[in-house]
Amino acid sequence: MSTPAKKTATNARKKATAPPTYANYIQGAWVPSKNGEVFANHNPADTRDIVGYFPHSTAEDIDAAVAAAAEAYPRWRLVPPPKRAEYIFRVGEILIRDKEAISRDMTREMGKVLKETRGDTQEAIDMAYFVAGEGRRLYGQTTTSELANKFAMTVRDAIGVCGLITPWNFPIAIPSWKILPAILCGNTVVIKPAEDTPLSVYRFVKAFEEAGLPPGVVNLVTGYGETAGAPLVTHPTIRLVSFTGSTQVGRLIATQAADKGKKCSLEMGGKNALIVMDDANLELAVEGAVWGAFGTTGQRCTAASRLIVHKKVIKKFTQMLVERTQALRVGPGLDPANEVGPVINQDQLERVLHYIDIGQTQDKAKLLCGGKRLTEGDLAHGYFIAPTVFGDVAPQAVIAQEEIFGPVTAIIPCQDFEEALAIANGVGYGLSASIYTSDINRAFHAMRDLETGICYVNAPTIGAEVHLPFGGVKGTGNGHREGGLQALEIFSEWKTLYVDFSGRLQKAQITD
Amino acid sequence: MSTPAKKTATNARKKATAPPTYANYIQGAWVPSKNGEVFANHNPADTRDIVGYFPHSTAEDIDAAVAAAAEAYPRWRLVPPPKRAEYIFRVGEILIRDKEAISRDMTREMGKVLKETRGDTQEAIDMAYFVAGEGRRLYGQTTTSELANKFAMTVRDAIGVCGLITPWNFPIAIPSWKILPAILCGNTVVIKPAEDTPLSVYRFVKAFEEAGLPPGVVNLVTGYGETAGAPLVTHPTIRLVSFTGSTQVGRLIATQAADKGKKCSLEMGGKNALIVMDDANLELAVEGAVWGAFGTTGQRCTAASRLIVHKKVIKKFTQMLVERTQALRVGPGLDPANEVGPVINQDQLERVLHYIDIGQTQDKAKLLCGGKRLTEGDLAHGYFIAPTVFGDVAPQAVIAQEEIFGPVTAIIPCQDFEEALAIANGVGYGLSASIYTSDINRAFHAMRDLETGICYVNAPTIGAEVHLPFGGVKGTGNGHREGGLQALEIFSEWKTLYVDFSGRLQKAQITD
Amino acid sequence: MSTPAKKTATNARKKATAPPTYANYIQGAWVPSKNGEVFANHNPADTRDIVGYFPHSTAEDIDAAVAAAAEAYPRWRLVPPPKRAEYIFRVGEILIRDKEAISRDMTREMGKVLKETRGDTQEAIDMAYFVAGEGRRLYGQTTTSELANKFAMTVRDAIGVCGLITPWNFPIAIPSWKILPAILCGNTVVIKPAEDTPLSVYRFVKAFEEAGLPPGVVNLVTGYGETAGAPLVTHPTIRLVSFTGSTQVGRLIATQAADKGKKCSLEMGGKNALIVMDDANLELAVEGAVWGAFGTTGQRCTAASRLIVHKKVIKKFTQMLVERTQALRVGPGLDPANEVGPVINQDQLERVLHYIDIGQTQDKAKLLCGGKRLTEGDLAHGYFIAPTVFGDVAPQAVIAQEEIFGPVTAIIPCQDFEEALAIANGVGYGLSASIYTSDINRAFHAMRDLETGICYVNAPTIGAEVHLPFGGVKGTGNGHREGGLQALEIFSEWKTLYVDFSGRLQKAQITD
Amino acid sequence: MSTPAKKTATNARKKATAPPTYANYIQGAWVPSKNGEVFANHNPADTRDIVGYFPHSTAEDIDAAVAAAAEAYPRWRLVPPPKRAEYIFRVGEILIRDKEAISRDMTREMGKVLKETRGDTQEAIDMAYFVAGEGRRLYGQTTTSELANKFAMTVRDAIGVCGLITPWNFPIAIPSWKILPAILCGNTVVIKPAEDTPLSVYRFVKAFEEAGLPPGVVNLVTGYGETAGAPLVTHPTIRLVSFTGSTQVGRLIATQAADKGKKCSLEMGGKNALIVMDDANLELAVEGAVWGAFGTTGQRCTAASRLIVHKKVIKKFTQMLVERTQALRVGPGLDPANEVGPVINQDQLERVLHYIDIGQTQDKAKLLCGGKRLTEGDLAHGYFIAPTVFGDVAPQAVIAQEEIFGPVTAIIPCQDFEEALAIANGVGYGLSASIYTSDINRAFHAMRDLETGICYVNAPTIGAEVHLPFGGVKGTGNGHREGGLQALEIFSEWKTLYVDFSGRLQKAQITD
Repeated sequence: MSTPAKKTATNARKKATAPPTYANYIQGAWVPSKNGEVFANHNPADTRDIVGYFPHSTAEDIDAAVAAAAEAYPRWRLVPPPKRAEYIFRVGEILIRDKEAISRDMTREMGKVLKETRGDTQEAIDMAYFVAGEGRRLYGQTTTSELANKFAMTVRDAIGVCGLITPWNFPIAIPSWKILPAILCGNTVVIKPAEDTPLSVYRFVKAFEEAGLPPGVVNLVTGYGETAGAPLVTHPTIRLVSFTGSTQVGRLIATQAADKGKKCSLEMGGKNALIVMDDANLELAVEGAVWGAFGTTGQRCTAASRLIVHKKVIKKFTQMLVERTQALRVGPGLDPANEVGPVINQDQLERVLHYIDIGQTQDKAKLLCGGKRLTEGDLAHGYFIAPTVFGDVAPQAVIAQEEIFGPVTAIIPCQDFEEALAIANGVGYGLSASIYTSDINRAFHAMRDLETGICYVNAPTIGAEVHLPFGGVKGTGNGHREGGLQALEIFSEWKTLYVDFSGRLQKAQITD
Repeated sequence: MSTPAKKTATNARKKATAPPTYANYIQGAWVPSKNGEVFANHNPADTRDIVGYFPHSTAEDIDAAVAAAAEAYPRWRLVPPPKRAEYIFRVGEILIRDKEAISRDMTREMGKVLKETRGDTQEAIDMAYFVAGEGRRLYGQTTTSELANKFAMTVRDAIGVCGLITPWNFPIAIPSWKILPAILCGNTVVIKPAEDTPLSVYRFVKAFEEAGLPPGVVNLVTGYGETAGAPLVTHPTIRLVSFTGSTQVGRLIATQAADKGKKCSLEMGGKNALIVMDDANLELAVEGAVWGAFGTTGQRCTAASRLIVHKKVIKKFTQMLVERTQALRVGPGLDPANEVGPVINQDQLERVLHYIDIGQTQDKAKLLCGGKRLTEGDLAHGYFIAPTVFGDVAPQAVIAQEEIFGPVTAIIPCQDFEEALAIANGVGYGLSASIYTSDINRAFHAMRDLETGICYVNAPTIGAEVHLPFGGVKGTGNGHREGGLQALEIFSEWKTLYVDFSGRLQKAQITD
Repeated sequence: MSTPAKKTATNARKKATAPPTYANYIQGAWVPSKNGEVFANHNPADTRDIVGYFPHSTAEDIDAAVAAAAEAYPRWRLVPPPKRAEYIFRVGEILIRDKEAISRDMTREMGKVLKETRGDTQEAIDMAYFVAGEGRRLYGQTTTSELANKFAMTVRDAIGVCGLITPWNFPIAIPSWKILPAILCGNTVVIKPAEDTPLSVYRFVKAFEEAGLPPGVVNLVTGYGETAGAPLVTHPTIRLVSFTGSTQVGRLIATQAADKGKKCSLEMGGKNALIVMDDANLELAVEGAVWGAFGTTGQRCTAASRLIVHKKVIKKFTQMLVERTQALRVGPGLDPANEVGPVINQDQLERVLHYIDIGQTQDKAKLLCGGKRLTEGDLAHGYFIAPTVFGDVAPQAVIAQEEIFGPVTAIIPCQDFEEALAIANGVGYGLSASIYTSDINRAFHAMRDLETGICYVNAPTIGAEVHLPFGGVKGTGNGHREGGLQALEIFSEWKTLYVDFSGRLQKAQITD
Repeated sequence: MSTPAKKTATNARKKATAPPTYANYIQGAWVPSKNGEVFANHNPADTRDIVGYFPHSTAEDIDAAVAAAAEAYPRWRLVPPPKRAEYIFRVGEILIRDKEAISRDMTREMGKVLKETRGDTQEAIDMAYFVAGEGRRLYGQTTTSELANKFAMTVRDAIGVCGLITPWNFPIAIPSWKILPAILCGNTVVIKPAEDTPLSVYRFVKAFEEAGLPPGVVNLVTGYGETAGAPLVTHPTIRLVSFTGSTQVGRLIATQAADKGKKCSLEMGGKNALIVMDDANLELAVEGAVWGAFGTTGQRCTAASRLIVHKKVIKKFTQMLVERTQALRVGPGLDPANEVGPVINQDQLERVLHYIDIGQTQDKAKLLCGGKRLTEGDLAHGYFIAPTVFGDVAPQAVIAQEEIFGPVTAIIPCQDFEEALAIANGVGYGLSASIYTSDINRAFHAMRDLETGICYVNAPTIGAEVHLPFGGVKGTGNGHREGGLQALEIFSEWKTLYVDFSGRLQKAQITD
């Protein structure tokens, strides 16, 4: 995840008429920020369109939300998990019912095309059904004891109040990855979504409300990182901070959490390689590269921002890729004819253009297509960038090392399989990787030796399913995984239980 | 774990004759510290006895050891885990053979009685056999995919070079908890043991050498926290820091690790409650309290430093406990007649005596027995403290809140079961707890509601078995567990693998 | 489960007007039996009430159903499990919607009170949500290989066409235990429900139809054991037979299945002990005994048909139990005031009365209450038996050894805990057991030493939850368990996969 | 496994001098058969060499052994599993020490070459270390309850006395697969090994004796199937029968076990296909085919007895295979120069020659090499058959459908991948399969669609590792797997435990 750069905000009381004003959700009630301030949420495809006004919250609001969560915690922790799960199943059903409306709102507030926002919503649905399945599982272990008449076992226990900080690129999917396992495990939460996408989380939280979730279990506070996120991270009652976003912000949060003795889970940046071997199905590889590089306008932590291509096929691959890229239709995501939407905001626009400049000037890479903002007609009102492909990029080039988080990808030539792996592993991140090859031996070698948390064979670097762990190594994470049962390791603590029913003092390891 | 306070060290080149001088183990060779300096390791039961001289290592030595581990890593990672396990089984067999000698050395260097050092060695043996069993397990998951002709699975992968920092109270058991799963998972390690107990770890490392472990997989560097531990924590090549020790030092290490983007696992302090209900088997409870409070001279992170006793039985319990405590025979651990050995060093002696003073003066608690240093005869040459029981201690008293890490325990009266739980949970730590009761309903309520990582019923707060997770919540840990399969979550990273064998681009969650 | 004794059937073409005629469900269509014959389904609370007519199917119908299942199998096996699960979630939602109607029908056709038939339907709902959760799990294992460059893993695979034979006492819950995991695992099924309760299964199958399940995946054939069940068991295409019913019939089926090389899963009879210790909460124990013995009119395989009571409390317990039993209101289950309904049919009525006679004459036990058919007023039209308690029953008495499957329980005195266990274990069955005691040591000893598949502490012998394994040892089963993930062991086969990507011949265990 | 055809036996009291006479092992003592009779164990490579005389046991001996096992059971069941495991680790260490001697004895009594008998012994060693690892695992599950204040969990329990019947082709490996998990789970056993290989099991049992296993836990009775095996299967005290051998005998045993209500686990025949695709590494495929077909003289249940080869490469493959086959050196296994040993006995010799005759006459297949007994020089005293390859074999030919269990393989041509799968699946067995292909898509399709319990990619059909499940579908098994954790499903029963600590009657699924 890249740094969630800020949209221009109106830190003023709302004046205009049309766009609705939304509220925080604290203790089961919809309330404005204590200071009464709001910020505007713009449509990145047309900044004239204000989606709504959201509370510009500060530490006071965080305090209230954390207090609500703390109050709800002892009771929620004792609700039998199958009952907790019933709320989540209901949330899943509500999301199915409202999928289209939620997805349209999401496209409007963050830009990616409707097909993808539907996928985003679907991911929250899938996560709801998957996580709710833990209501009747949450397995711990019974095991043996080395001592007679002693019983030994483990159970999972809740942690307490969790602070969740989520980005704008998967506005409902990522919150679902955090909120759902957190509350299934018996925790209560306060979520502070990115200031660019509060509406999607609002709609998500509405589903919890409709499902009848007890007040205080899920609390929503909108606002900015410095003013609302920071006090959440350092709040003494918060036992766990779960963050998805840039590596830079993630490290800072982790350091603060460590200093305060909080548990901390991070999902951060990526610089993901898609390797194309000489025996690859090129058609398939190109299609995967296009989708991997430009899906979500390249604003995925798993985006295929590096294409490592075998010299034998690089010429043909490049030609096919550029052709396909140039044919991509860019425009507002609500128009079903468009394939690529805008980037999220002005800062992000500038950041991407800056990297495109570096690629040409500093890295001396070959700009094959794209490389500029699109401003024809109504596009001028949005943050549109033409999908950009660089060729002949050196593995150590800036655009081959740093996360751009936009519709830009870099073709890096390689001599053979071993070099491909070395290049792929030669970055500071370790989130996702992909290899296109028809050879089973190479595929298994790659799966073993690629230094990433996720690895695809003959599929692009993106496309995780909710029931498998998601996350990365090296600069990408701090050892945790979301998705899959591995998420339970974040949101619960193991408790080891020994019952000695021998009626006498027994000592493990010690012979009297 | 309390702060590993330092022994008086001789930061000078060794002059005397008799005591042997030991070396660091780097890249399969025994080498002195680069600066040639050593420190003396004294017998805490008789400080005239110098156990040996050990390298007073600094950053240079750490660099060499980390380099060795880094060099060994790529090859070791590819050794099939069943083969890795064979080395560990062999280590287990060697420890069985040398158990008595190792245990005597351990008593000599750190003081606890021989019966307990044998238990300590046995724990490393048990851990070896348990962890080696993962050589043919290390299970990941195969699972389903929502897309046809797509295969999805997870595997565990190694992390890289691990830095391990271990305390003096379980000089071989705790290193075994870290080294064994670390290398079984394919990592290589550098261990920096407490300066008070380098000999035990030396002997442990000798077993790896004899087992034929490839050079560089396990490296040992002795020295002090500031000079040898600190550079290990911050070394850029180190991917994971695993620390057992005081909460204060642990937080500092965690903060540094977070700042550098390293994974970090912490096992820290405890203030463990042993609850005695009115329906408890009092005989058993007293025996458990004595063993829980004074085993290892109270220097266990799981020591029963709080005894929360129901008012109906407190009088009788107190009388029985004091009687049993006063009967404990204190003296050098090598004499089989002794039941309680010395504390580890001068700093720790002073720290414990200081808390005993606070208990009397500031906390106004009732000193029921012990409370002073023992200096009769040869005891004067050691760090002996009479086992100490305080009565009528308030839940908020300093000695009922802070970790003392010595032979001191505090009896806290309670009115009923609910109050007992509230007192038990009313501290900043969350490692171990215990309840003595014959009532099954109370036992299950307590197991559910005690806020600790480990909970015992009708057994003292100490006595973990290697195959169950060990660690705590709140101020005790940062979410990880050692022991059991849970240790694998520390020493490996999940890798998610998707193989799409459909021959076409498929998109999870998205319907075209 | 006892032998499903037959209701009087009208093996004639249907003549009357009012009651509806139902059909078999084969290949997604509702079809009559090939011979056109039907049998009547009577209300056991009032045999004048004909619930409906159902196909009196024979081998021809079984052939057609098996053929449909076989045809559907190859495609269904390849439907991604998350998609299979979506059908099952939908079935769960439909059952929630229709819960009341289904439950009323169920009470009408098999007699148990409405509160219990609602529980029966709820169990199918719970099972649907639980099993569907496996759609994104179905975990196999990735593991290590002792050889380099070799990958090893396991997956679960489907088995083929399954033949399911289910009893009348849990007319929808038990079919849900079999159909749902069977189809989730990729199998297709033919179910032959007990002739006493075809309507409940009809309603269940309607839910699959409404959910859009592909034709042929679930097929329903109604009829009798000899004419429809037998040809299902021996059909050459059937790969697995899953049966719940009497031990006698189960053994016969298992023998036939073994002879034909089919997999076979059996859940059979029980003779379950509820132990009451002298330290038990007597109020709770009596309540549990009444519910355990007379719930479902005693027609549960887990019914508490033996009450083993400590001599110190037997007098009081007996008095309280008889009092509570005599107060039970017996009558048609649709009347909410009634607590106990009729037994299922004439054969079962006679069987129970026969055992009551044996208890008095042969066993010389003391009839404390009940012991006769109830025929006052409209009860004369149903199969009502007064809840019956025998006292002073010897452990070896017929009524303490054989499964009665009716509202009859036997109080057996015991001297102490050890004798209680010996009596409890002294029968040929091993399904469920229960102990009432407040002592934690006794509870854990009992949980360890009771020879049953299910064991309760301070709860009656009945009340399983869907996500835990259900089944028994000794005469009760053949090693399988339904419910929980253990059900997957029945309905799938493990497949071990090795991929050698070394490019050379490697030999496990062998050193060249 | 094929039918263990009998060696010529001397059912007479031993007269000669040299060869030793061995005894049964019952209740920790070495005892002759009650009738005092023995049978001779010949060396199949030279029948003049009598390996020893073994008890010709009957029902009386079985009775004594079962009684010993039954007596030992209650105590052994309560030995803490980590302690049970220590015996097994010790057995593993003894086998390592004696590996060479055991392996030489094994070659002498059953013929396969020394390299392979060393592998056989190694497999028992690996199994010992693997299974012993369960001593500190044997995991059951703690889980949630839908009711408040109720605890729910599962544990594994022992079954009782197990009867084990093992074949001669893996004389120590297969007994290790059964005995070790059986006793680790707390059962006691009686083993009746094949009459052709009693010495190997004798040596195995000696290791248990030396390890100090309590008397009665493992009992050995030698003899024939009809006289010693049959009474073991039907003995009323036996709770579980585990059999490896022919499908014919297996079905009979299963039927008897079902009739008596015993649990039964079967590993039976195979007719395993090795598929060679046109994109295969032919060199590797040929090497794999030779090893798969002629390893253990083809007497493996996993032998590659069918080679399904793509038409494009069949000519070259055939030529290479025949060349390699003809070069195999056949002779006594103790001579390290030999690669293929004799078949086990006269019956098996005749059976294999009979199939070779059928292949030529009835199946009209092309005999490419081998096809006859070898009788030159000393070979005349042994049961040697030249490695035999048939070409142009039709999928439905007798030699392509029935298990031969000898050094005979059949090349079957195929048109494409789909046909290869269809042919591979077109037999009544389902044990092992293998595919040689470099294409990852084909490999994954094959792994999914081959109807076997074990599947290899680019490795022959043989070579299982102990920690993965072993066994098959269709005619090969009855749903169980040996090896891996799946073996625990055979040798233990699940017990579900519910503890209600609410103090009131709660009812699952039912709302009052």
